[in-house]
Parts: sequence; C-alpha cells; structure tokens
Amino acid sequence: MTDWGNSHYVGICKGVMRQITDAEILDLTHNISPYNVREAMYILDRSVDYFPEKTVFLIVVDFGVGTARKAIAVETDKYYFVAPDNGILTLVLERHIPRKIVDLVNKKYHFGTSRTFHGRDIFSPAAAYITKGIFDELGTRLPNYATLPYRKAHLTPNGAYGEVAYFDRFGNIETNIPFSWIAEKDAVKINVGKKTYEVPVVETYADVDEGELLVHEDSTGYVEIAVNKGIAREKLKCFEGNELEILF
Amino acid sequence: MTDWGNSHYVGICKGVMRQITDAEILDLTHNISPYNVREAMYILDRSVDYFPEKTVFLIVVDFGVGTARKAIAVETDKYYFVAPDNGILTLVLERHIPRKIVDLVNKKYHFGTSRTFHGRDIFSPAAAYITKGIFDELGTRLPNYATLPYRKAHLTPNGAYGEVAYFDRFGNIETNIPFSWIAEKDAVKINVGKKTYEVPVVETYADVDEGELLVHEDSTGYVEIAVNKGIAREKLKCFEGNELEILF
Amino acid sequence: MTDWGNSHYVGICKGVMRQITDAEILDLTHNISPYNVREAMYILDRSVDYFPEKTVFLIVVDFGVGTARKAIAVETDKYYFVAPDNGILTLVLERHIPRKIVDLVNKKYHFGTSRTFHGRDIFSPAAAYITKGIFDELGTRLPNYATLPYRKAHLTPNGAYGEVAYFDRFGNIETNIPFSWIAEKDAVKINVGKKTYEVPVVETYADVDEGELLVHEDSTGYVEIAVNKGIAREKLKCFEGNELEILF
Repeated sequence: MTDWGNSHYVGICKGVMRQITDAEILDLTHNISPYNVREAMYILDRSVDYFPEKTVFLIVVDFGVGTARKAIAVETDKYYFVAPDNGILTLVLERHIPRKIVDLVNKKYHFGTSRTFHGRDIFSPAAAYITKGIFDELGTRLPNYATLPYRKAHLTPNGAYGEVAYFDRFGNIETNIPFSWIAEKDAVKINVGKKTYEVPVVETYADVDEGELLVHEDSTGYVEIAVNKGIAREKLKCFEGNELEILF
Repeated sequence: MTDWGNSHYVGICKGVMRQITDAEILDLTHNISPYNVREAMYILDRSVDYFPEKTVFLIVVDFGVGTARKAIAVETDKYYFVAPDNGILTLVLERHIPRKIVDLVNKKYHFGTSRTFHGRDIFSPAAAYITKGIFDELGTRLPNYATLPYRKAHLTPNGAYGEVAYFDRFGNIETNIPFSWIAEKDAVKINVGKKTYEVPVVETYADVDEGELLVHEDSTGYVEIAVNKGIAREKLKCFEGNELEILF
Repeated sequence: MTDWGNSHYVGICKGVMRQITDAEILDLTHNISPYNVREAMYILDRSVDYFPEKTVFLIVVDFGVGTARKAIAVETDKYYFVAPDNGILTLVLERHIPRKIVDLVNKKYHFGTSRTFHGRDIFSPAAAYITKGIFDELGTRLPNYATLPYRKAHLTPNGAYGEVAYFDRFGNIETNIPFSWIAEKDAVKINVGKKTYEVPVVETYADVDEGELLVHEDSTGYVEIAVNKGIAREKLKCFEGNELEILF
C-alpha cells in the first residue's frame, strides 16, 4: 500500500523483495492521495481483515522521509505491519494489539542507503525478511509507536459524533460513524465546518434530486455523505479530520 | 475485470480470494469506465481467448448492486465466468456456450452480507471456490442468463452494418464491424447519429491531415474510427450502442 | 514495462504468457508516457538492478509498430531483455553487455499475426519462451542493436554537463548528472534552453520559497531540478533530450 500510483517505484520494490523471498506479493492499493497519512490510516484499517493470517502489510505513505521519524515493524497475533512510524497504524493497532515493535535500524537488513527512497531500501527488505521468519534481528525493540490524533466515534441519545475520515475519488465524504447508529432515521442534521445541513438518510444516490445532499451506508458499514451527481467535499467545504456531528 | 480503478477494493477482493484458494490471480483490467456494461461486454469478449483453459473470469461491472439482478457463475467448455447477471456476458457466451449456470444464492459460500459490495462478498468468493472444484454447490441452477441488446454486424453488397461498441481512452470509436469487410476499400461513407461522413481507409493516423477522420484496423481486427490528433467521439457526437452504417 | 496504462492490453499479454510459462509475472510500470522511448530508456536503466538474476524484462514502448523496426531479444550476463529495436535498451546495454541478440522473426514462436499489437503477438510470447530456456530458436542472430543518441554526463572543473532525461508526473526535471558531482556546492548556475538560472542546492523542496527553483538528489542518485509547489518543466520550458549545463 503506497501513494506512488502505478509508477516504477512499485516495481522496483517488488524486485527488491523478490531477491529476498518467494512469498506472494499482492497490491492492496497504490492510489492513496500523496502524503495523506489519515486517508491511508482509515483505508488500511478497513482492508486488513480481508487478508489471510500471517499477511505482512507493507505500507509506505510517508511525508517524513529523511526526517527523524522511525521505520518500524510490528508483530500482532494475526498480522505483521511494516511502515513509517508516523501514525499510519493508529487504527489498525487498536484492534490488532502489538506483541513486538522493532525499530528497523539494522543496516544488515537494508538494501541501500538513500535518504529519499526508504520504501526500497528499508521497508521492502524488512517486509521480505519477515516472510522468512526474521523479525527480532531487524533492529532494536521499541516500547511504543506514534499515533495520529483523531476523534473516536461515539453515540448519545441526541446524535452520533465522529470525524471526516477521508474523501473518495468522487469527492464523497467518508466518515468514521457506523451507519447502524443512524439506520432507523429518515433524515438527520449534520454539523460540519461551522454549518448545519438537513440531510435525508437514503439507500442510493438517485433517492434525492440532482445536486442534493444525502447520507447512506458505504461498503464497510460507515456513514457516507454524498451529493447526487455532485461533489460533497466542495458543497460542504470540509477537510479530513474535521469534527462531524450527526444530530437526530 | 472491474471498473474500480486501482483502488483498495481490488486489493480487498484479492485478500478474500487468497483466504480460499492458492490459484494465481491475474488482473485483466480495472479501467472499465464506471458502470459501463456495454464497454465491459466488448472488452471481455476480445480478451478471453488469450487466457489458458480453465481460467475463471471474475467480472464486476455492476450498476445494479442492491437491486434484483442476480449474481451468477457460468461453466463453459473452456472457461468459467462469475459476474452480475446484467448482460455483460452476452457476447462471450455466444462463442463459449454455457453448460451450467448457477444463481449464487448459497450463503455458505458468501463472505459477508453487505448490500453494496457484492464484489467482495459474493463474486470473489465464488470465483475462488470454483478454482477448488466447487460449482454446483454455489447456488441453484438457472435455465438462462440476461443479455444486452446489441446490433450484430452484418455485410451486404452495399455496406457493412453494426454499432458503436465503445470508446477507448483517446476517444477513438471502436466498432463491432470486422475490418476485413472493408479492407479493400480506399474510402467509405459512414452513417452514424443521423449524419454522413466520407472517410478514407488508411493504415495509420498520420495518413490524414490533423483533425481529419480516418478508419483503420484495431488490434483485434475490427474497424476503428479515429481523428488524427483529435477526438472522434466528439467530432461524430455519437454514443455507445448507436447504429453504424459503413457504405461502399 | 509498457506505456499502456492499466488497460486490458496488459491483461491480454499476461494471458498469452501464462499459456506458455508458469514463471512469475511482475509489473515494473505501465505508466510510461505514451510513445516516450527516452523516458522508458532512463527508467528501465534505473530499475533493472533491483531485480533478481535471470529476470526477463519485457518492454513495449513502441512508436514504430507496423514499421521496419525489428523486434529483438537480448541475452546478457545477468538479465534478458525483449523489446522493440528502437533505442530503448541503449543505456541498460551499456552496463549489461549483450552476449547474444536475436531478431524475433521465427513465426513458430509468435502468437498471432496482427500488424498493430506486437506486444501480444511477438514480444510477450518471446519473453515467455525465454523463461523456458528457448532463446536461439526465436529468430536469427543480429550483430547489433539500435541506439538512441543522448548526451553522456561528464564533469570538468567548471561544471557538470548532461541532458534533460525525462519529467516525472509532477513536472520535475530528471537529469542524467550524478548528484555527487555537485553535492558540495551551495548553489549552481543552470544553462538549459538558452537561458541561465541561479539555483540553490538543497535537501528538500521546502528549503526554498514557493515558486522558486531548487536542485536536489533524486532517489537514484541523480540531480533533480524542481520548483517548490510548482512545475519545473513549465518554468524552464525545456524538453527531453535538451542539453544541460550545471556551472560552478
């Protein structure tokens, strides 16, 4: 999982891994918006549970290459994760509790020494070595990992509270509020970015007029805010991480 | 084959399949225009014969998720197909005659229960189980499948008749008329969208002036209508499925 | 490696190869700019060394399909290459010296006979047969291969000389001048396209004001010319292959 599009950087990292391991390499996605750690955090969290046990997730969405942020590998009961220590694992590690965290400082398991392409030189080789049973040797143990602050969803009798998680490629607003919390409502009030909107709760886009707002259930069970044939992101002028209130 | 671009939806479906089967997963394309069943129907038909026997084709181009359209699996002499029953298999099943069609209603072989992501929950697991020899168990037998109406190509002494199949990413017009039917002509008259155009039959774009129409052979042997350094789709203002007459 | 994007042409070629060989197929990239042989030449050269020995590189960036340019396969000490003979291998074969070059004329090892899709009909099957140990049989021996003229980088006490290699997707200018040659400088003079620019040598984009030029090291060790939050390609109005002087 990267923000590199389908560039040769992806191919190079696969070549590096293939020099170390025969394990199968599957692409989760390379279409994360550039440097968008919050989007990657949410999409990773909504994707991992569809993969087999012992999968090693290699995640490179990294605005901090060349800075002091660490490169880490994490072992959990079910999966392994290799990523920059920039908060990208925040959500996924709430559900998959770390057993071991390693700071990937052992140069013996690096592939090169560039300051700008840690995906190739540090992250990819680490992921490949993990498939061979090498983990502790990759570096030194860490007690903890970086987290990204976010607003946890919660429910009260008056409403559901959470945040703007990310935008999909159509500008639909993805949230971290479970749809089941509002499924029984016909319409809700949405407070976001200092404004309030009255929005119907529907099944599909076509249930409202063109240009009108709607909320419905996305494919992973969360509330999605959309505009029929329009761009919700522009209509609501909100940003990722914005506070979101859905009042009943 | 999907219309999802290179999003994490593709990766998730591969993860689901990998929990069921070790069979190799190849991407045909995920760049079908969103919801464009006609385009997918043509591209699938022009692609399958390059794949080995026993290939299971998993196709999710589906404007009807959540509606009454069925999810089906089809067994033919050479291949298997798993797709929404929305006509997308029309062309390919004219050449590869169905031996068995199954309505994928057996929940034992589903992966989840979302109303909006049947690719993950119904189609992907079905394709994976077929690689393990499971077919009849996936649901109940169907006598037939849905077809998309289209204008079959035919030839008369006066001309060749067919339809606008789809547009490629440059706006070139792909047709369902075999190029061999017009290969001996120097120029033809094209009737489409109530207008008539005089068009030379050439080998490459550069054989006409910039902005001029041409017809030539596409890579699968059909007539392609193009504009040298231009967009044929806009110049001819036609639509997919439009009747097309090429008069001699 | 192709310039086809993620279209079904890529999938079809994989299907063809899979009918011949079980060897693993990895994508290097399909995002080369259409017909841009110079860009492909540089990117290939900067990618191959990350792949295991005996890798067969299949490269189809080909403005000459249907013309007299040959289709070739090349054996070197470490790798195999299958590509149109249009200069695309110029750089990579300077470092990996050819042992054998074959003109892929043996129709027994072709898959079809189209004039417009040699990727499917000639290049893909050849790459697949090479993984099975078939090489000499693919055609007739050639004494040489086509090269693309380019300006080799060289260093004098006054400056470093080379060319504009290609543009990345952000419009940054990639060069063929090793960054180590200018790493100790604080600023340089760049002559390109008949104009001269004073440019600081920095570590990251943010080290200059928005809209200002900078040079820094790219991920493969070469000089990259960029504009902080801007498009260097437009600011410098230069082209691929342009002469480039970096004066001290």
